[in-house]
Amino acid sequence: MLIVQKYGGTSVGTLERIANVAQRVIETKNDGNKVIVVVSAMSGETNKLVDFAHHFSKTPATRDMDILLSSGERVTAALLSIALQEKGYKAVALTGRQAGIITDNSFTKARIDRIDTSYMQKLVDDDCIVVVAGFQGITEDGSVTTLGRGGSDLTAVAIAGAIEAELCEIFTDVDGVYTTDPRIEPKAKKLDMVSYDEMLELASLGAKVLQNRSVELAKKLNVNLVTRNSFNNNQGTLITKEENIMEKPIVSGIALDKNQARVSVINVDDKPGIAANIFRKLAEENINVDMIVQTVGHDGKTDIDFTVPESELERTKIVMGKLSDSYKNVEYDASIAKVSIVGVGMKSHSGVASKAFDTMAKENINIVMISTSEIKISMVIDSKYSELAVRTLHEAYELDK
Amino acid sequence: MLIVQKYGGTSVGTLERIANVAQRVIETKNDGNKVIVVVSAMSGETNKLVDFAHHFSKTPATRDMDILLSSGERVTAALLSIALQEKGYKAVALTGRQAGIITDNSFTKARIDRIDTSYMQKLVDDDCIVVVAGFQGITEDGSVTTLGRGGSDLTAVAIAGAIEAELCEIFTDVDGVYTTDPRIEPKAKKLDMVSYDEMLELASLGAKVLQNRSVELAKKLNVNLVTRNSFNNNQGTLITKEENIMEKPIVSGIALDKNQARVSVINVDDKPGIAANIFRKLAEENINVDMIVQTVGHDGKTDIDFTVPESELERTKIVMGKLSDSYKNVEYDASIAKVSIVGVGMKSHSGVASKAFDTMAKENINIVMISTSEIKISMVIDSKYSELAVRTLHEAYELDK
Repeated sequence: MLIVQKYGGTSVGTLERIANVAQRVIETKNDGNKVIVVVSAMSGETNKLVDFAHHFSKTPATRDMDILLSSGERVTAALLSIALQEKGYKAVALTGRQAGIITDNSFTKARIDRIDTSYMQKLVDDDCIVVVAGFQGITEDGSVTTLGRGGSDLTAVAIAGAIEAELCEIFTDVDGVYTTDPRIEPKAKKLDMVSYDEMLELASLGAKVLQNRSVELAKKLNVNLVTRNSFNNNQGTLITKEENIMEKPIVSGIALDKNQARVSVINVDDKPGIAANIFRKLAEENINVDMIVQTVGHDGKTDIDFTVPESELERTKIVMGKLSDSYKNVEYDASIAKVSIVGVGMKSHSGVASKAFDTMAKENINIVMISTSEIKISMVIDSKYSELAVRTLHEAYELDK
Repeated sequence: MLIVQKYGGTSVGTLERIANVAQRVIETKNDGNKVIVVVSAMSGETNKLVDFAHHFSKTPATRDMDILLSSGERVTAALLSIALQEKGYKAVALTGRQAGIITDNSFTKARIDRIDTSYMQKLVDDDCIVVVAGFQGITEDGSVTTLGRGGSDLTAVAIAGAIEAELCEIFTDVDGVYTTDPRIEPKAKKLDMVSYDEMLELASLGAKVLQNRSVELAKKLNVNLVTRNSFNNNQGTLITKEENIMEKPIVSGIALDKNQARVSVINVDDKPGIAANIFRKLAEENINVDMIVQTVGHDGKTDIDFTVPESELERTKIVMGKLSDSYKNVEYDASIAKVSIVGVGMKSHSGVASKAFDTMAKENINIVMISTSEIKISMVIDSKYSELAVRTLHEAYELDK
């Protein structure tokens, strides 16, 4: 079958590791597959280039940044192709442009518009291993662009979708997606399969195996995504559409996000437009609001609670300070954590939420905010209880079994 | 006027030096000029990448090498453009492809076929400083190529020719072209002007300011070339066509080449085809023969003397050993030096050669071979006398005056 593999910066961080990647690619090829490989820059290279640019300017032109930043992936692609040929395999390195990756002109964070796969297809048909420099493309009029954070993953997923590869394997330095962060709960188990939607919830909530952009694109293009460890031969986690997952677990994992802060607007007038006014101002300042909770008011007054990234709390305070006096009774709390229970199976099972609340109550953990979706229950608690909450929930849903 | 400037690896070897280059470019711009800048990779970068490739293969695919090696110049171009913009100037970095440089497909040593200057012209007309990544281009069908040694100089000269720039300034770490090597003769003087043909003779004979390819291209495209020092404001040396040089000096410089070896084929049959046979075999092995001297024979026998680069002497011996017995009487001498007197003015002056021979005779230096062209007299001598020969000739032709 046709497999797209992507190796991240750590996996190609040294010449020895590139040799190791070459070996893996060869094994995949020898198993009878056709292979397209997407590579990142050697770890540290991109940061070095960014530092160079910042030596000259705090706000370097994004157009020039893309010529600068796209160089690291080209180096890795060329080296891997050379290594593969030395072992007797047909291989060729391609830049983003040569791989046919056409983007919009949002320099440093371009979106892939389309991929002209004809040249890659020709090479693959010719039994050649194609090595693509990740993270980059060109605009319709020929300017070099880069795709922003997680750009190489995105390159791999987009190519897999466009060329209709059977599998897209993303190699990192972890084994896959876990039921929760193993540093918090050593009994955490690696998941064999997870749906796109579950992965989206798990990723945004802190399980940083894959950027959401890549998972969203995989979902849109129906790409079977596997996250694997480039330093061992473990099976990894398949991220696929829900229909492909036979036995749907009620709960797949527990995610923790400690980088949120809570904002409580107390005793505002309970009338239309109040919430809209707050969140429009925050949006204008590009502040990402995550959870929003508003309770039914009484006496014509209500409370609005929401969370923002902790790093944006100071800017949030400035925005809130500029609002009219009616919103001036505001409390802020940076010492919170958001614990989430994620699972496609909870759609068809009742009692998942109540078990979560029971578990918190037994441990005497106060729940400050609650927000639920079809496949997720999120609770905001005092951050000092976050590890305890994760461990007890992990046990309560028997995720270690 | 429109000026193309080229800065080599040493001139952009650190971030501080790139800042220094930005300052120079700005001064040129502020003098009322339009500027296109061609840059090399930061010194050491290209060698580092070559070492990386050789870690995997002694004979890496040249096509991949070009994707690898073209990355260094892109980094410098982006950084310089960022530095210029930070100082308030309009600037844009271009890759070789974006600069419209189309080459043949001789990877790692491509020749420039043509330059589509339309995009650069538009930017220049728009008062923008254009910063081009040197040393690279693409083939007609879109593969990345590099131009080989001296490739960035070549990029600058070719752009200057194609866009009809008034001047092409090549910045290195020396002040220009000297009457002879200042390390041998401290009284050596920098030349203000030198013709293309003189420069070709001086370069090939050891004055390594410019690669011959660049001088040849400048001559062909009629580009006024200036070599200057990026670390001071000295005037440099203008390399231009002979007609532009008003006062033609009889002798412009003394060049020394110690990296030659002499091969003497003694007592071969003096009949047609003998010399041709030797030099065809050497050419088949890609051995560069420099001087060839054959004297009028007697008794049906003659001697053929020639020189090859010292580094190719061992391969030469192998070729000579395979020739038929009639050529077997061969002597080799690696301890020779070639001293050359170069000057366009000697065309119209007699006595230049005899002064050279007189000078050698006075110092008791035996001349082993002599070869002359319209603008050059070359003498092969014992290498132990080479510095003495250069100094006495320099004085005899009053080059220190």
